[in-house]
Amino acid sequence: MKKTVSIVGASGYTGVELVRMLLRHPLVELKHVYAFSSAGKTVAEVYPAFTKTTDLAFESIDNLAGDTSDFLFFALPHNESQKIIPKFFGKKKILDLGGDFRLKDAGEYERYYNAAHTAQELLPQAVYGMPELNAGTIGTAEFVANPGCYPTAAILALAPLAKNHILPDNVSIVSLSGVSGAGRTPSQKTHFAEANESVSAYKVGVHQHTPEIEQALGILAGKKITAAFVPHLLPITRGIHTTVAIHIMNNYTLADIRSMYAQFYSTAPFVRLLPEPPRILDVNHTNYCDIHIARDEHADTIVILSTIDNLIKGAAGQAIQNMNLMCGFTETAGLA
Amino acid sequence: MKKTVSIVGASGYTGVELVRMLLRHPLVELKHVYAFSSAGKTVAEVYPAFTKTTDLAFESIDNLAGDTSDFLFFALPHNESQKIIPKFFGKKKILDLGGDFRLKDAGEYERYYNAAHTAQELLPQAVYGMPELNAGTIGTAEFVANPGCYPTAAILALAPLAKNHILPDNVSIVSLSGVSGAGRTPSQKTHFAEANESVSAYKVGVHQHTPEIEQALGILAGKKITAAFVPHLLPITRGIHTTVAIHIMNNYTLADIRSMYAQFYSTAPFVRLLPEPPRILDVNHTNYCDIHIARDEHADTIVILSTIDNLIKGAAGQAIQNMNLMCGFTETAGLA
Amino acid sequence: MKKTVSIVGASGYTGVELVRMLLRHPLVELKHVYAFSSAGKTVAEVYPAFTKTTDLAFESIDNLAGDTSDFLFFALPHNESQKIIPKFFGKKKILDLGGDFRLKDAGEYERYYNAAHTAQELLPQAVYGMPELNAGTIGTAEFVANPGCYPTAAILALAPLAKNHILPDNVSIVSLSGVSGAGRTPSQKTHFAEANESVSAYKVGVHQHTPEIEQALGILAGKKITAAFVPHLLPITRGIHTTVAIHIMNNYTLADIRSMYAQFYSTAPFVRLLPEPPRILDVNHTNYCDIHIARDEHADTIVILSTIDNLIKGAAGQAIQNMNLMCGFTETAGLA
Amino acid sequence: MKKTVSIVGASGYTGVELVRMLLRHPLVELKHVYAFSSAGKTVAEVYPAFTKTTDLAFESIDNLAGDTSDFLFFALPHNESQKIIPKFFGKKKILDLGGDFRLKDAGEYERYYNAAHTAQELLPQAVYGMPELNAGTIGTAEFVANPGCYPTAAILALAPLAKNHILPDNVSIVSLSGVSGAGRTPSQKTHFAEANESVSAYKVGVHQHTPEIEQALGILAGKKITAAFVPHLLPITRGIHTTVAIHIMNNYTLADIRSMYAQFYSTAPFVRLLPEPPRILDVNHTNYCDIHIARDEHADTIVILSTIDNLIKGAAGQAIQNMNLMCGFTETAGLA
Repeated sequence: MKKTVSIVGASGYTGVELVRMLLRHPLVELKHVYAFSSAGKTVAEVYPAFTKTTDLAFESIDNLAGDTSDFLFFALPHNESQKIIPKFFGKKKILDLGGDFRLKDAGEYERYYNAAHTAQELLPQAVYGMPELNAGTIGTAEFVANPGCYPTAAILALAPLAKNHILPDNVSIVSLSGVSGAGRTPSQKTHFAEANESVSAYKVGVHQHTPEIEQALGILAGKKITAAFVPHLLPITRGIHTTVAIHIMNNYTLADIRSMYAQFYSTAPFVRLLPEPPRILDVNHTNYCDIHIARDEHADTIVILSTIDNLIKGAAGQAIQNMNLMCGFTETAGLA
Repeated sequence: MKKTVSIVGASGYTGVELVRMLLRHPLVELKHVYAFSSAGKTVAEVYPAFTKTTDLAFESIDNLAGDTSDFLFFALPHNESQKIIPKFFGKKKILDLGGDFRLKDAGEYERYYNAAHTAQELLPQAVYGMPELNAGTIGTAEFVANPGCYPTAAILALAPLAKNHILPDNVSIVSLSGVSGAGRTPSQKTHFAEANESVSAYKVGVHQHTPEIEQALGILAGKKITAAFVPHLLPITRGIHTTVAIHIMNNYTLADIRSMYAQFYSTAPFVRLLPEPPRILDVNHTNYCDIHIARDEHADTIVILSTIDNLIKGAAGQAIQNMNLMCGFTETAGLA
Repeated sequence: MKKTVSIVGASGYTGVELVRMLLRHPLVELKHVYAFSSAGKTVAEVYPAFTKTTDLAFESIDNLAGDTSDFLFFALPHNESQKIIPKFFGKKKILDLGGDFRLKDAGEYERYYNAAHTAQELLPQAVYGMPELNAGTIGTAEFVANPGCYPTAAILALAPLAKNHILPDNVSIVSLSGVSGAGRTPSQKTHFAEANESVSAYKVGVHQHTPEIEQALGILAGKKITAAFVPHLLPITRGIHTTVAIHIMNNYTLADIRSMYAQFYSTAPFVRLLPEPPRILDVNHTNYCDIHIARDEHADTIVILSTIDNLIKGAAGQAIQNMNLMCGFTETAGLA
Repeated sequence: MKKTVSIVGASGYTGVELVRMLLRHPLVELKHVYAFSSAGKTVAEVYPAFTKTTDLAFESIDNLAGDTSDFLFFALPHNESQKIIPKFFGKKKILDLGGDFRLKDAGEYERYYNAAHTAQELLPQAVYGMPELNAGTIGTAEFVANPGCYPTAAILALAPLAKNHILPDNVSIVSLSGVSGAGRTPSQKTHFAEANESVSAYKVGVHQHTPEIEQALGILAGKKITAAFVPHLLPITRGIHTTVAIHIMNNYTLADIRSMYAQFYSTAPFVRLLPEPPRILDVNHTNYCDIHIARDEHADTIVILSTIDNLIKGAAGQAIQNMNLMCGFTETAGLA
């Protein structure tokens, strides 16, 4: 029998991608889609792409109290899910796609998200949901915090180096993101005529995904990792590309490094190690993370490149991958 | 009286941008535009944008022997200008927009350009034409090698650090370029449906602009600089964005660094130090290089961001800036 | 038991979209993918997006003679399938995605395709495969000619008017297409820097899809229809948008017209009549054709707007919809 | 001596394009740039592209009362200039880039702009500023209403037919516009992720530019012209493309029609009659309108295609062309 699931905050780009994917998932039934401003409208009224594919309508979040689903997804803006999740914690399985429960250190949260954290008692309960790192723990979790989009691409790019203790303490990460990463609310920055035919960095040194990357890599490395994270906005709708160059003093060959990656990801269904630099084009609309490792011989530098679809492996797809593990389904169910 | 100028290799994207800019230049008269495959056609037949703006027609390169212009621009593919320039060297002022005479070390040329260099005797004669570094030398030069597009953005981003001896021996440079940088000849990589909605790195560790960057920064720093250079192809027509993150161990504040840049570029008319990360949008169709310096305090890292229009400051505009200096014109003539 | 299918000409954009969709189809098994220049490479080598999703490799078309599949798709350039299909006609079910067998009049073919037709005896045998017009006939067909991309959007936009005898004898059709419609072979026109930030009409009055549109509408209307067809190239990868304005002298209200469309498409699973102008965004990566009908009251004009994904409803998706009918599967199998 | 000019409403896309062009104009001095929300900021703070090119700052519109410029440009949202222009009418030369004074019929204005017109007494005084139609009248005008962007492309496409009395009473016009035409204020429709990789029609039959097109063509034709105008939003920043197909029953050959156009535009410096369909690429950043006329022989249809840059020939450039005429300058001054 199918599990019943509902989504809280279903009308943003992440939420609606989750709607799209859950409607096709063979093992679950999507019961309710809760939203704020879109409440009362059908999904197809807000997103015409859903015409003829679902009759679901966005419901007011006020209805959430009586929800009887087995599983709840939260796809709310930052600082919102911490207000609601405590009411459901322990009562049903929960996956939060927002940033409220990813960091273990509430001080870091408050520093980077510029907001108090009012549910700090749940921080230790939230399992960080990156299946390539901790599928086992996710499999028994009741409450999972889904990784951010940039961290997914960055952590997967560097995890094998961290695990094998060759990641330096300080690492610089250059990331490029499509505009859908900024959400559905219009702004000057995401206005077509400003974003098109351009590219620019933003939030240099202060982006809220920085401590998330440091936390995950630090756990793998068993030491404190500091990341200089430089995100850029690209004139594409979907996709993230990550570039990391690491000056390796010691004697690792390219084959050594590639072999570490191959081993680390030997059982990961959604990581692909490619012989050429990855293209965003090839991961868009999929749950894959493509990785390529090159070595600049003359500069003694390893270059790691990774790509994901920010709305899928960077959000809704990874959420479903986590749900699959939490519910005992095949990890790839509904994601092929 | 106006100087007369001609262009050899005028039908590619760089050549035609030069045509556009020289037609508007108040102090020169564009006499001849030589081309290979387009010879015999008017500029407007090949580029309809020129309709009603010029009657010039592309002439066969065979006509070049009798050219009487005061000044010759070469905008040829790699390995081509070295075959022709020796015939004109010493007879008139020459500016080469290609890569043949930028590197002083013929071995580096052969390694990175995969071709022999048959005019090595001229390498010491060619002045590297980056006015922000050596306007004086350019002013008395007979033969100038115009910098590459990526090197222009990268060197301008790092020159003040090199000059002030705080550039590390090894530096990683992440660059993003619009598709016009790949020229006018169609290819799978530049096919709209392959380049659009994507981004990917290419030629990691082997790009021919690497030694050019190292050479210029090394001269400024007075030591060998090794660059791990990672170029990426962006889905935009024009523009280059460069990102460099440098972990600075010592005590330079952001104000220190910004002050170094302000001083270094105090007389450079085309470098703008911006208070926010630069956008390609703001330099396109101009000869400016925009630079922003940020400091990631928590990671002790300086982040330098620079942008140019690859066809202007990265090619035709810088060529005219050099010509202005070589001919004793105001540096900004025809470039406002 | 699953039907076995193979694709002849599988390495172009249409062919590979068919590969993608057939790999997910629950009722068929994709056995062979034949190609010319890509023969010998795996699908994933040519299209990295297929890494980890299939081990299929492109085979030489020389192997086609021994093919034992139940069903053959042909996705070849114009003038090619007419050379091969006669060998298989009557031996297995065949669907041709090219233009060779869409027109009943060989003279029209020769005029618009600039080539002789060497298999004219099969023209009467080929069923034109537009399920919204003739699902019944397709259901019993052995050989189906899949419609062109532009004709699909244009015919679906106008069929109800033709059927109801209110389509004028002369109709002007303005169509806009994404660049993937021009195929995978690079050209000046589809070079990123030429197509991006532009739009232009092409093949005005001579496009080969013109007689196909006229033929289908003429059959529905029971009279000769002449179309002035003006295709344009848009700077997007996928999608077609069609705009037709018809000055209606008589008394049809907007409600009348909408009602005709609703009735005509009452059983069509992939046509959606929208209350607002359709967006290419909403049909991309789907098999839907979205249609909106507006009435400019002050100009007594009906405006019909339609959109499709040129590679899906305009090619591979419609091919599968036809295959479903030809094989007795549910019309929507593998297309949700 | 230079004329002094000021701009009221200088911070929108049209206003700032006017700033850019006027700063380069050899015969005028730009004195004041008035704005609402940007008042108090420098132009370079709002638009970093202006760094180092001007020290001008946006001033409050409250300062306008004391303005001493010879010439005032108004680039305000609809319904705004009618409130201010009456105060200056007769005191200095005025050019309005908005829609308030283009229509002679206040009823049409109120119908299409959904607002009352409170300065109807000035409607007869405003000269419609399309130099290709009435350069003489503009030359002696004190008050000119600059045409809309869509009307500029549409009217120039059809004026020779209207003038030669072969334009039918009813004409359908399909226009495509870049997103900058919607202005600088962000909205859902112009949000990058909604506009990119899409195209859609909007305001079918109710766009406010419809009566403007009808008015101008009607005057030329000497009869009432009704236009079914269908605008579409394209995923490009700048540019308009217009397509009109006219079924011509009588015996005009393509050469006849082309000859009419050549004659009509024989003295128009900014209209180019091209031998191939025009591309937006070729007019962007210029004041040209490119036109191509084709004839679909089999459908007895003339197809007229035109392109402009919506911000230049469709706004700021045409405004300067009008100013040149009004001030007795060469028509092309500052526009080359």
